[in-house]
Amino acid sequence: MEKICVLGAGSWGSALALVLAKKGYEVIMWTLNKEQANKINKTKENTDYLPGVLFPNNITLTTDLEKAVLDSKIIVLAVPSQAIRSVSKQIKPFVKDNQILVDVAKGLEKGTGLRLSEVCEQELPNNPYVTLSGPSHAEEVAKDIPTTVVVSSKDLEVAQTVQDVFMSPKFRVYTNPDIVGVELGGALKNIIAFGAGICDGLGYGDNAKAALMTRGIREIGRLGSAMGANVSTFAGLSGIGDLIVTCTSMHSRNRRAGILIGQGKSLDETLKEVKMVVEGITATEVAYEVAKELNIDMPITNAIYSVLHNGCSTNEVVIELMMRNKTHEMEEVVDDKLGF
Amino acid sequence: MEKICVLGAGSWGSALALVLAKKGYEVIMWTLNKEQANKINKTKENTDYLPGVLFPNNITLTTDLEKAVLDSKIIVLAVPSQAIRSVSKQIKPFVKDNQILVDVAKGLEKGTGLRLSEVCEQELPNNPYVTLSGPSHAEEVAKDIPTTVVVSSKDLEVAQTVQDVFMSPKFRVYTNPDIVGVELGGALKNIIAFGAGICDGLGYGDNAKAALMTRGIREIGRLGSAMGANVSTFAGLSGIGDLIVTCTSMHSRNRRAGILIGQGKSLDETLKEVKMVVEGITATEVAYEVAKELNIDMPITNAIYSVLHNGCSTNEVVIELMMRNKTHEMEEVVDDKLGF
Repeated sequence: MEKICVLGAGSWGSALALVLAKKGYEVIMWTLNKEQANKINKTKENTDYLPGVLFPNNITLTTDLEKAVLDSKIIVLAVPSQAIRSVSKQIKPFVKDNQILVDVAKGLEKGTGLRLSEVCEQELPNNPYVTLSGPSHAEEVAKDIPTTVVVSSKDLEVAQTVQDVFMSPKFRVYTNPDIVGVELGGALKNIIAFGAGICDGLGYGDNAKAALMTRGIREIGRLGSAMGANVSTFAGLSGIGDLIVTCTSMHSRNRRAGILIGQGKSLDETLKEVKMVVEGITATEVAYEVAKELNIDMPITNAIYSVLHNGCSTNEVVIELMMRNKTHEMEEVVDDKLGF
Repeated sequence: MEKICVLGAGSWGSALALVLAKKGYEVIMWTLNKEQANKINKTKENTDYLPGVLFPNNITLTTDLEKAVLDSKIIVLAVPSQAIRSVSKQIKPFVKDNQILVDVAKGLEKGTGLRLSEVCEQELPNNPYVTLSGPSHAEEVAKDIPTTVVVSSKDLEVAQTVQDVFMSPKFRVYTNPDIVGVELGGALKNIIAFGAGICDGLGYGDNAKAALMTRGIREIGRLGSAMGANVSTFAGLSGIGDLIVTCTSMHSRNRRAGILIGQGKSLDETLKEVKMVVEGITATEVAYEVAKELNIDMPITNAIYSVLHNGCSTNEVVIELMMRNKTHEMEEVVDDKLGF
């Protein structure tokens, strides 16, 4: 059977490895952590990130990056978004041009504001690239609970190849040609999830959170549109779908981080407590800068930025968001020119 | 202070009565149930529908409909959607033309498929009509947890009057001129909430439910557009906002009813257990008929209809929804001509 490698052994990489292994692929996962690799190879369980799920025998772990990549039809990039560039650099010496990169990280590069496809294009310009996104908590995918995702690429044929590789009765894969929109939806929803967590931490309810999410996807659409996305994409699985799942589930570490901030913890305390990477914080910083440059109105992003970096209190900020002048919902929509 | 009457003493009517009373209005609530009226007037608490919340002294209950309506600047219609026509008929003999009707029920009339504004227009053609909708669980509004809603009317000035009457720091009111879209969003989201409940009852997770909601709002937009709504409205508070809150909160009886069906209970057993009116069931029937007539593709509505009326098993139906041919998300969007 064909070989596929998954770079990164977090919860999402592990869940996707399971999807592929169940379809019969030979899956080799790479991790920097020798202890983790040995433990999973021996116990067949990723206790740190996906406890309670058994790995079948056609998943093996290695710390040898070259061995992982060698002869893999597909290279799944399942590392944090800020590590995509360095991993791409590391595999460059031995990657072959026909190997397909499937990026499953969601984020924008800090400093450059680049989408991850752009980062990969700079580092590995000859490899076909596909992004995979959508409402897909790893914990559910690993347990075969039905899930739908979207794959997108500049090259539709490559996207369809990846669609066929991942598709299963419980893991439904759609294609969408708008790679800019798919990537931005995945990256920017973490800002709103972080904001939803703040709302929860402040003790607000479902009504306020639904309003935040509604305004949030519109704000994302506004920035995304200015960055070249097709605004319809934000109404799909990788847009509002992923936003909903991230804002409402306790699986989301972005939301959990927001809850701590909402409860009055400092950013440092929060990061220590959540332990894992909080993509929403980087995303807020990048989106704040890009929106300023493009002159796009992003009230929620700006509010979260003020909390994170200007010492504003979360309560102050929510009151400000709530108390903007009474307004006509439709005018706002029309101003956005989004039909959304 | 001006007088406002609220017809119906369920949870939503009570919560809105509280919003108005806190702003100083003299609020008179009407209920058919003498025992309930006496009890609330005495205990200052609506224990059946809004336990734990105290009514201030400027809310009184009556069973005398004429007394309630007399001299009220605004008549809030807070009865179940299928009772709007009969209540309108009952108040007809003594209502004055300058009294504004504010409908807060969400639904379509069984049999005719009419929107509630159309029902009111038939019965009380001379009264200005406003619909109030959005993500707003009564339980949260009653506790002053921040909430945003939309009001809509054919006459913008009337909508603005109602906006000013209800607006408070914790209850933010927007206007939207698209009354068709606002009404349909509120009515049709109950179908999807019922479906979300079925998903939950079957033991599916957040991923599948987010996919259902994403597909759901698109399907609502498709039907709404054919029925004359502005599709942008479905991307606002009374569309996706209300859909989110209804599908994710245990406050929603539509969702709770769906959970019971998903767990294998019959429709009769479910209705007995939920006790309150399940608007989603009527909405499914009406939308199914209207969509058939207008030739609109409504896979989720059709699936739920089959479960309710054709004896299909919920599992069968979900598998069918999941396993539709692999497809391009964007093509589907473009086909819908929604930009949504």
